[in-house]
Amino acid sequence: MNALVYQGPGKKNLQNMPRPALQDAADAIVRITKTTICGTDLHILKGDVPTVKEGRILGHEGIGIIEEVGTSVTRFRKGDSVIISCITSCAKCEYCRRGMCSHCEQGGWILGNTIDGTQAEFVRIPWADTSLLHIPENADTEAMVMLSDILPTGYECGVLNGCVKPGDIVAIIGAGPIGLATLLTAKLYTPADIIMIDVDDHRLDVAKRFGATKLINSSDGKAMSRIMTMTHGRGVDVAIEAVGIPATFSLCQSIIAPGGHIANIGVHGESVPLHLETLWSQNITITTRLVDGVTTQLLLKTITSGRLLPTQLISHRFKLSEVMSAYETFGNAAREQALKVILTND
Amino acid sequence: MNALVYQGPGKKNLQNMPRPALQDAADAIVRITKTTICGTDLHILKGDVPTVKEGRILGHEGIGIIEEVGTSVTRFRKGDSVIISCITSCAKCEYCRRGMCSHCEQGGWILGNTIDGTQAEFVRIPWADTSLLHIPENADTEAMVMLSDILPTGYECGVLNGCVKPGDIVAIIGAGPIGLATLLTAKLYTPADIIMIDVDDHRLDVAKRFGATKLINSSDGKAMSRIMTMTHGRGVDVAIEAVGIPATFSLCQSIIAPGGHIANIGVHGESVPLHLETLWSQNITITTRLVDGVTTQLLLKTITSGRLLPTQLISHRFKLSEVMSAYETFGNAAREQALKVILTND
Amino acid sequence: MNALVYQGPGKKNLQNMPRPALQDAADAIVRITKTTICGTDLHILKGDVPTVKEGRILGHEGIGIIEEVGTSVTRFRKGDSVIISCITSCAKCEYCRRGMCSHCEQGGWILGNTIDGTQAEFVRIPWADTSLLHIPENADTEAMVMLSDILPTGYECGVLNGCVKPGDIVAIIGAGPIGLATLLTAKLYTPADIIMIDVDDHRLDVAKRFGATKLINSSDGKAMSRIMTMTHGRGVDVAIEAVGIPATFSLCQSIIAPGGHIANIGVHGESVPLHLETLWSQNITITTRLVDGVTTQLLLKTITSGRLLPTQLISHRFKLSEVMSAYETFGNAAREQALKVILTND
Amino acid sequence: MNALVYQGPGKKNLQNMPRPALQDAADAIVRITKTTICGTDLHILKGDVPTVKEGRILGHEGIGIIEEVGTSVTRFRKGDSVIISCITSCAKCEYCRRGMCSHCEQGGWILGNTIDGTQAEFVRIPWADTSLLHIPENADTEAMVMLSDILPTGYECGVLNGCVKPGDIVAIIGAGPIGLATLLTAKLYTPADIIMIDVDDHRLDVAKRFGATKLINSSDGKAMSRIMTMTHGRGVDVAIEAVGIPATFSLCQSIIAPGGHIANIGVHGESVPLHLETLWSQNITITTRLVDGVTTQLLLKTITSGRLLPTQLISHRFKLSEVMSAYETFGNAAREQALKVILTND
Repeated sequence: MNALVYQGPGKKNLQNMPRPALQDAADAIVRITKTTICGTDLHILKGDVPTVKEGRILGHEGIGIIEEVGTSVTRFRKGDSVIISCITSCAKCEYCRRGMCSHCEQGGWILGNTIDGTQAEFVRIPWADTSLLHIPENADTEAMVMLSDILPTGYECGVLNGCVKPGDIVAIIGAGPIGLATLLTAKLYTPADIIMIDVDDHRLDVAKRFGATKLINSSDGKAMSRIMTMTHGRGVDVAIEAVGIPATFSLCQSIIAPGGHIANIGVHGESVPLHLETLWSQNITITTRLVDGVTTQLLLKTITSGRLLPTQLISHRFKLSEVMSAYETFGNAAREQALKVILTND
Repeated sequence: MNALVYQGPGKKNLQNMPRPALQDAADAIVRITKTTICGTDLHILKGDVPTVKEGRILGHEGIGIIEEVGTSVTRFRKGDSVIISCITSCAKCEYCRRGMCSHCEQGGWILGNTIDGTQAEFVRIPWADTSLLHIPENADTEAMVMLSDILPTGYECGVLNGCVKPGDIVAIIGAGPIGLATLLTAKLYTPADIIMIDVDDHRLDVAKRFGATKLINSSDGKAMSRIMTMTHGRGVDVAIEAVGIPATFSLCQSIIAPGGHIANIGVHGESVPLHLETLWSQNITITTRLVDGVTTQLLLKTITSGRLLPTQLISHRFKLSEVMSAYETFGNAAREQALKVILTND
Repeated sequence: MNALVYQGPGKKNLQNMPRPALQDAADAIVRITKTTICGTDLHILKGDVPTVKEGRILGHEGIGIIEEVGTSVTRFRKGDSVIISCITSCAKCEYCRRGMCSHCEQGGWILGNTIDGTQAEFVRIPWADTSLLHIPENADTEAMVMLSDILPTGYECGVLNGCVKPGDIVAIIGAGPIGLATLLTAKLYTPADIIMIDVDDHRLDVAKRFGATKLINSSDGKAMSRIMTMTHGRGVDVAIEAVGIPATFSLCQSIIAPGGHIANIGVHGESVPLHLETLWSQNITITTRLVDGVTTQLLLKTITSGRLLPTQLISHRFKLSEVMSAYETFGNAAREQALKVILTND
Repeated sequence: MNALVYQGPGKKNLQNMPRPALQDAADAIVRITKTTICGTDLHILKGDVPTVKEGRILGHEGIGIIEEVGTSVTRFRKGDSVIISCITSCAKCEYCRRGMCSHCEQGGWILGNTIDGTQAEFVRIPWADTSLLHIPENADTEAMVMLSDILPTGYECGVLNGCVKPGDIVAIIGAGPIGLATLLTAKLYTPADIIMIDVDDHRLDVAKRFGATKLINSSDGKAMSRIMTMTHGRGVDVAIEAVGIPATFSLCQSIIAPGGHIANIGVHGESVPLHLETLWSQNITITTRLVDGVTTQLLLKTITSGRLLPTQLISHRFKLSEVMSAYETFGNAAREQALKVILTND
């Protein structure tokens, strides 16, 4: 089968690979029908994720059709249409039982990381019963791809951890795909204002179209003073970090109101100064989280009822066989005005 | 009247000062019967708290007898025995209505800071109706002094913010008075283990007597490895910082289990590296808080029912006229084996 | 001044009454500019509320202009535009400090009940600082009247107590003004479905216009079976009772899914059979609540940001001098297709 | 093997039965080492539980040794010592994923109900990986039996649902084994007072020994007035129903303070009048729950750390072969002063 294979830092190849087979009674083999590329895949290609070894098929998002299931799989059978969660969950370990499936003792984020992933014609899914979801009839299949990772990540790590509530002023730092997914799911709680901050005017335009109420291009270094002006010196109730660098996390600290929440989504590569010399008395809460995928069912209901339209996040469409071009486009997001790309395997 | 007056960095004096008078209809004048010294008072004397000006009477804890009330005070009258909260709350502003009285627009921590405090024979208490509490008949008056600050601080900033629950493994970094008050109130939720970390063996002995299940003298720099061994490599559910320096906050980061809570109590003077490069995916929560005093009534019930014995925190007793000696003792806590000191004004 | 006065069961009169004067330092006198009529006022007129005595000026909702304040009032002054909360809160008692202002030891629901109310040219508001809210500049004044009672009641007693969340199926029994206010505020949390149940087709039409996704006219006694069909036999996540009779509370019990919430808003006059013989094992939660008014500020932000449009609730407008006609209209709501009426005092 | 078999209302028999065999890949066969009798077993014998058919082996509690596991069981193997949860959980269905395992689509309470139970030498446990727990080395095995049902039931349905917190006044109606288990687990949250109500003085004596602070023998019908006197007319913060009849649930309603929680544990056979005519405005919360078993691990940690001593609940010990006598004793609990009985299978 065709698959996109990591060949070491800076190198990837679309090549023929053996089709995966069942290895465990709880496995399923899924024929991929649609997949996508994540910012994390770009990190991997830079060599930033040491757990990913050469020869690994990349990708941890996608939907497909069940091809075959192991003997202990009870909730899926050949022919079922499924969403693949980026988080593999055994549902048995103490972490899974607490709902913290990201830290599953036998799963977590393993697809396209420590086992082969979804940017291929077929993929093996361990613990299939609790790592796949049924796609309802008549659902928009492109919308379903957004449930693998980006929507639950924005919702769980940003919106739920940030405790967004009606009437709040929310700032989202970073208007890339994950920041925009956070924006879409923040709206489920009807905050009074969503301030979107980025350095790319195109992305800010998109954010406006998605419902952001205020836009700040932070290129001039004045984001903090503008936000403090907008909030009459009070700061924001919720600051969501969706970039992953010290400057943006620092901005969160400088704009948070007393009693506010800073919710980190970004994948960080270095430590950040935490200004406890001022924050110690400010009654703030800072959270970090790797998505657990425990809200995917809730988000699915929200989509099927027409209240969340994630296909807005999709900017480009390719065939799976064009995956190299898709990476080219997604990897030059600013130039290409790319958000999420869909790769279809017919 | 006699009062302990701040005279600039390193300088304080017990001297005659004018007796305070009512300034506002919501004020009360309280005759102090017992007061105490807080670690924050030592910070002030070092010159670390710029809001405190020369000539200020220090002290934000104590109990006393109402001497006089303003015309709008309805819940207290002359002769009532009262606990003085270290947090003055107008109960009217948006912060107070949200229960975040520490950020009261007209109050917060002002006693012994921006207005004269309690280390004196009399003190003026603004917003008396919502900044004082009645002392029940037959209550142990020394126990009541511990409700001004140290118990609600340990409980709100450490135990509640840390979400301590039955079965948890809790680490408290710092076995000074505030760490010990945290220990006493953590026990209200029956964690499985309370690990106490300090550099002073005497304080660790006290912690053991108070119910700590494991003790670590961190002088040798091996606290982290010991805790990871104790917890079979998993880390602790709750890490409470009760010192206020980078090293102890960093220790919290290194011992926290995935999904755990780091609750900061310490007053910090500088920023601390936050290790987002590892913590971003660990689903942890970090909180800061200045005590709000919203649980004082709950703690009072716990004391009067005999389930919390805060007088254990008291190591030395003085007359108010001996306040200079009391500072000498409290300021040399390790040498004097001092915890909280009680100053009585007869 | 003109005022609407209760004259015993079935009797009311618009008559001249003495203008109220300050009685306490915490009082304010408000000149009413707009008021409205509540379903509770009709209950009073039936003689169902024994705390209301003959000679009482009715009404607990409205907005106005501060005419005069007592000496301890600090947050309002003559000329301020204010919303009057139906709940008077001293902010000092234990209930108020817990946010349960409905049970304020010196307040609660007293306006138009145990003290004179708002259907008059002037009203005296006790504990003015914590029982009034400032109206922002440029706010729609009719929308502000909806913040006195009906919006926080629907939101606190129905939506918050019912724990409405994204993706939920919510049933609201009763499409009168309070049920419709519940519908408007339930939408703040983006449930997947809002099923509205009533016996009046006009009100169901209004509910549809307001965003209900499914309508059931329960006149034929088949509401339960229809809802169970709609939910594939599972039942609803949240059932909100907004009528106040045994039949509607029983319906809630018969349609609630395991793990669901039944939130009672209705004012009941008799007991209701609770079917513990089936519900004991269904993991359900039943709540009751008299509105506390603690979310009025949040709802105000939601209105001023344009995300909640409460003027939809207003069907008729009168002058205050036409209050007798207004009661006639509001009291024949079905025939008059009346929702909330606005009474203006120019 | 020997097993206690239900033979229709009023009839049971200790008889030879075929040893259970694996039926599904997720099954385990457990050799019972200790089991016990539940009040529910007595209900079954009265014919009150129609799902239990003649020929069923009774019992849903116990510990044992794994004898054999199905091919998909990964967390247990032959020889492991295990606690059997009374709730069988597939961990895959939507209810299990929400933590509401009591309503597992393929499990829930099935042992000794719709499939054969634990009062036998061997038992088949479906979904073994998520329905069994490992017994730690050196644990007191009798204490472990209390984790099958009675402790999590008291804790989840009574203490957690009742939101018991430090300083609260808690009333527990019913001092039978389940009421006493509730008392033991309520103490984990250090309420100020635990008032125990029963008609049996012996059980009240036991409650006192277990830590109840106030005792009421309700035989004289004056429980309500006594509790209102004890609480200065205010009522209790939490009322826990642990009997299952209308009179005791009604008592809960009459003693609950505004803002309080009524947590039902009792298995009810008929409906109960809910006094909404008074409670509608009292801001109370009523909960029902069938135990989910989601806190068993937490309670296990609490036991192994020595902070919960459930063996206090055990009054009598028998051999499994004496199970008929054990029922005789347990069924005449008042006369025999029986609490929980332990049946050992050597």
